[in-house]
Amino acid sequence: MVVGYRTYLDLIAPLLAGKTVEASAMMQEVDRCRRALALAGEGRVVALVCGGDPGIYAMAGLVFELAEHLDAPPAIEIVPGIAALNACAALLGAPLMHDFCAISLSDLLTPWPVIERRLAAAAAADFVIVLYNPRSKRRTWQIGAARDIIMAERPPSTPVGIVTAASRAEERILLTSLAALPEAEIGMQSTVIVGNSATRVIGGRMVTPRGYGGKYRLAPA
Amino acid sequence: MVVGYRTYLDLIAPLLAGKTVEASAMMQEVDRCRRALALAGEGRVVALVCGGDPGIYAMAGLVFELAEHLDAPPAIEIVPGIAALNACAALLGAPLMHDFCAISLSDLLTPWPVIERRLAAAAAADFVIVLYNPRSKRRTWQIGAARDIIMAERPPSTPVGIVTAASRAEERILLTSLAALPEAEIGMQSTVIVGNSATRVIGGRMVTPRGYGGKYRLAPA
Repeated sequence: MVVGYRTYLDLIAPLLAGKTVEASAMMQEVDRCRRALALAGEGRVVALVCGGDPGIYAMAGLVFELAEHLDAPPAIEIVPGIAALNACAALLGAPLMHDFCAISLSDLLTPWPVIERRLAAAAAADFVIVLYNPRSKRRTWQIGAARDIIMAERPPSTPVGIVTAASRAEERILLTSLAALPEAEIGMQSTVIVGNSATRVIGGRMVTPRGYGGKYRLAPA
Repeated sequence: MVVGYRTYLDLIAPLLAGKTVEASAMMQEVDRCRRALALAGEGRVVALVCGGDPGIYAMAGLVFELAEHLDAPPAIEIVPGIAALNACAALLGAPLMHDFCAISLSDLLTPWPVIERRLAAAAAADFVIVLYNPRSKRRTWQIGAARDIIMAERPPSTPVGIVTAASRAEERILLTSLAALPEAEIGMQSTVIVGNSATRVIGGRMVTPRGYGGKYRLAPA
């Protein structure tokens, strides 16, 4: 059977024909994982569906943490998927050709000073930076604070890509600059990618060169 | 038509039936991308195949860099895929539940001091660290140097996962510790994931808690 958040199950409706399905509301992650484990404990084969890749900022870890407390935990297999960082990078061009960090700006489960320290370290060491959970209705100031921390190390003109609702009907792709980032349209379904010192915009796409240009002649002779 | 490195094309042989295919040897990335662009320039629809996700340390960027020098560059679409970090995380458990960095240890295109600075920054800011290109026949000392830099900030017992040839017949999954990392079997097809200060081994799987345990009761009452 299949367990998951209703919105995600709706996206894969054609795959669910003939299956027993339990859809749940948003923000019930712990209950949802517990329920999937309980059903598996009864001997069923249960698929717990989440958005993106279950292994990146998603529910795989919670399942293992909850299973740890069971007398007879079921066998658990994680099936990888296309995470927001994979999907958004592809839509923007090729921003993740070199070393990068993923940082969530949500301070619901992580203290802000920890997030701040990671932003500063990533900016100073010239990582491309993928920002998860950049803004929500209640968390509005974090993206501006992140911009200020990164801009202490990088030019205001650094390319920034924003993808909202990747590969859904309402998908939006936006290229802007680090300076203008806080004014951009960013919501709960957005992922932000901040370029490193080498990232350029080539023909409207965001590209971080890997370094081939230093070793091979890329321009015609 | 389809252009790619022979080994990767062999992996998708069933998908190539009836298609025109141009397979090339290893290490010919620039020639391969140039050839794909030339064929597209002749009006063909060309798929350039690479391993993992073309957008993560792969060939998407090179294609844009080469296309920049063309008078009439073809339309380019990047199709995202399961990168080594997605696949290896899933096989190890759930190590990427929290902020992480990807760092390539290959100093063929990147100077070692840049790599060293990124390792130190990632270690100090408590990122989970994914190491790409950890070792090859000719690059043997980098993994030990990386271990030393990270261990200056993290306990020797920090969990480390190593996946070699993910999802191929010869796949190997190994859990070890930061201290023992340089002695582990690591090759050109390996990806290494170093845990952060919260990463634990739960039932033989590598798990980085997201922080739900601080907010919700995960153990039974």
